Parts: sequence; C-alpha cells; structure tokens
Amino acid sequence: MTPASTTLVTDALNWRYATKKFDASKRIPADTWSALEKALVLSPSTMGLQPWKFVVVQDAAVRKRLSAASWGQSQPVDCSHFVVFAGRKGLDTTDIERHLARTAEVRGTTRESLTGFAEMLHGGTEKSRKAGVLDFWMAHQVYIALGMFITAASVLGIDTCPMEGFEPAQYNEILGLSAMGYGALCACAAGYRAGDDKYATLPKVRFRPKDVIVHV
Amino acid sequence: MTPASTTLVTDALNWRYATKKFDASKRIPADTWSALEKALVLSPSTMGLQPWKFVVVQDAAVRKRLSAASWGQSQPVDCSHFVVFAGRKGLDTTDIERHLARTAEVRGTTRESLTGFAEMLHGGTEKSRKAGVLDFWMAHQVYIALGMFITAASVLGIDTCPMEGFEPAQYNEILGLSAMGYGALCACAAGYRAGDDKYATLPKVRFRPKDVIVHV
Repeated sequence: MTPASTTLVTDALNWRYATKKFDASKRIPADTWSALEKALVLSPSTMGLQPWKFVVVQDAAVRKRLSAASWGQSQPVDCSHFVVFAGRKGLDTTDIERHLARTAEVRGTTRESLTGFAEMLHGGTEKSRKAGVLDFWMAHQVYIALGMFITAASVLGIDTCPMEGFEPAQYNEILGLSAMGYGALCACAAGYRAGDDKYATLPKVRFRPKDVIVHV
Repeated sequence: MTPASTTLVTDALNWRYATKKFDASKRIPADTWSALEKALVLSPSTMGLQPWKFVVVQDAAVRKRLSAASWGQSQPVDCSHFVVFAGRKGLDTTDIERHLARTAEVRGTTRESLTGFAEMLHGGTEKSRKAGVLDFWMAHQVYIALGMFITAASVLGIDTCPMEGFEPAQYNEILGLSAMGYGALCACAAGYRAGDDKYATLPKVRFRPKDVIVHV
C-alpha cells in the first residue's frame, strides 16, 4: 500500500464543500464510481453488522420525485450519482444469522465455531432493543459510511453534497425502503460542481481547532 | 487539487481493518497527525453545527483508565494516538448563536444578515428536541467525522480501530465530558498494526455488493 501525501488529503478536504449546484452535463467515470461503491461496501460497522442499504438512483423520473421530496433542491436531479443511505429498522435474529453465515463463508469456518460471537451479537442488540435505541445505534453506523463516501470522493476529486433535508417518509415510499425494513437517513449527491456555484468560493465555516479538539 | 488514483483509495480501504494489536513503539509523525486533526475539524455536519468534541488522549495514566473502561482492551494504551468522539447533549441556543457568530466572523458578515439561517437552525433543532431525538441526530453527525477520520487515516497508511466497546459513563467521567455538556459516543485508536496482529490477515467480512447496494 503506497499512502497518499498529507498535502493531497488536506487539499482534498479543503477543496470539498457541500455542492449546491452540480454540472448536470458531467458524469463520474465508471472506474471512479466503482471505487466509491467499494468504499461504501468496505465501510466498517459495529460488530460488522452492516445494517444498511445504499440506493444508487440513476432513473431520471425517480430522481425528479426525490428532488420534490427534498423541498425542490436540485442536487438529486443534477448530480452524476445520487445515493440514498438507509438504515435497518428493527434489526433482528435474521440479520444476525445472515451476518454469521457470511462470516463463516468468508472465513472458511462453521456457524458452530462462532457461538461466542453470536452471543455477543444477540446480547448486544437485545440490550439496545429493550432500551428502545437499537434503530439509532444502527443509524450511527450508516453515518460512518457517509463519512467514508465523502472523504473517498473528495480524495478522488469528486464533489459531494451530503443531505438530510428531505422527507424520509416520502423517500421510503418512493424507493420502497419501508417494505424492505429500512429507512432513509441521509443522502449524498456526487458529481462535479457547476462553474457558477456561488457556494464553491465561500470561506468554509468551522470552529477553531482549539474549540473542537481537546488534548489530554 | 490533484486527485488520488482509484487504485490508491481502493487499496487503502482493503488494507485497513479494525486493528486489535498496535505496535506500541511506533508513533504517527507530527505532520501526518496534523492532517488527521484537520480531517476532524473539516468534517461536515448538519447545518454546519459541529456538535462535537474530539478528545485526543496522550496522557499514559488516562489511557490506562480508558483501557480499563473498555473491558481491558489494549488499543487505548498501545496505539499512537487515541481519539474519543463526543457528541453534544442538549444542544441549545448557546450552540446555535456560537455557530452564527462564527459564520458571521468567517464570512465577514453580520449576525443580523443571518436571520433566515438562524430561524432554520432554531426551528430545526427545536422540532427534534420536542420529538426527543435531538441528541441522536447530533450523534449521527459525530459518526460522519469518525468515517472521515478512518478513511483519511487509511489513505495516509495509518491503522485505526474504531471502538464502541466501552463504558460511556466511565469515559465521560474520566475525561470530564459530562460537565462540558458532551457525551462519549465512540473512539478511534490510530497508529501502526503490530507485526503479529492475527486479525490483520483475516479475510474481510462484507456482504456481497448486490446485497447492500441497490440500483434504481
């Protein structure tokens, strides 16, 4: 693994901003998009549960409906690739067993040999379910994937706009997510900034490092 | 901005894994660490609120206590840099006004000119507070920063171990987070894998792309 330079990473993160206006004529090349889908798939999650679906929307009519469900924002329509990040609702034994089966398959072992891990998965999620916070916990994981996606994109020179400004219930209905047991949490438009997006040149608003980073 | 190659990004994300055993003798160089702190500071968040504190723990005695509060896991002690990700609890008018003041300062404008934005911030957070989900919403943002940190680190050749396996109440007490109005959500150890970490060579367990990515 040949690492990138610190300059490349810092430049990329300073270069990125929440793109409000995409150049609708530009498309992300297939190999770059493939790398971004890999970043989604490779995102880490609590106990490896991957409680998510990433919906990549290319259909123009569906994109138009998503834009309408996002207070008319243009990013869902104008970007190159639009991804809806959905989290598992009511994660249950089926999900856990699916994860255990996949673990056994990938690692060339048996479900029986994973009993300790299985107990951890069942016990941990059951405790959260009883406390009424299981869906929130799983939702946290989905945002790790969002952070990975934004970062990978910026390092690859791809603009993004992470979005929470939409009606989740409408997104769920349009994409059939509820029926799958998932719920839209956030979305990310990806592509190329329009030459005249006035937000591109606004100074980035961040608190001073000393106000967010505490050294102990 | 000169982007990285897709190969570099994909290789980095395949190379990374949740490092269980760090080489305690190796330290992340200052310029690399500085880039990682910048990644934290530059993380995006809903409406730019940055509802977080990132606690970088270098004190050996504190690290030992955090390890004890993490069921004895060794990463907090053996890694080069240990970061605790804390989210704002009960975000209120003070936070919003601090963000507005910073926005006015960075963009060279006045608080008065930001009235529309202020209404959006107050209205949006008030709605969540009433629904009892404000802290969860803010917590989501913290996980974006975790995803950014992990990705930036891997691209820079730095190993990480994201962790939720600890007693948040103990972390909060050890780091004085509750008094600051924040709560520990997750942590991330960063550094270099030990040569004999057996987890380094285990095949990565992920569902097949078709099971997590939906194309519409």
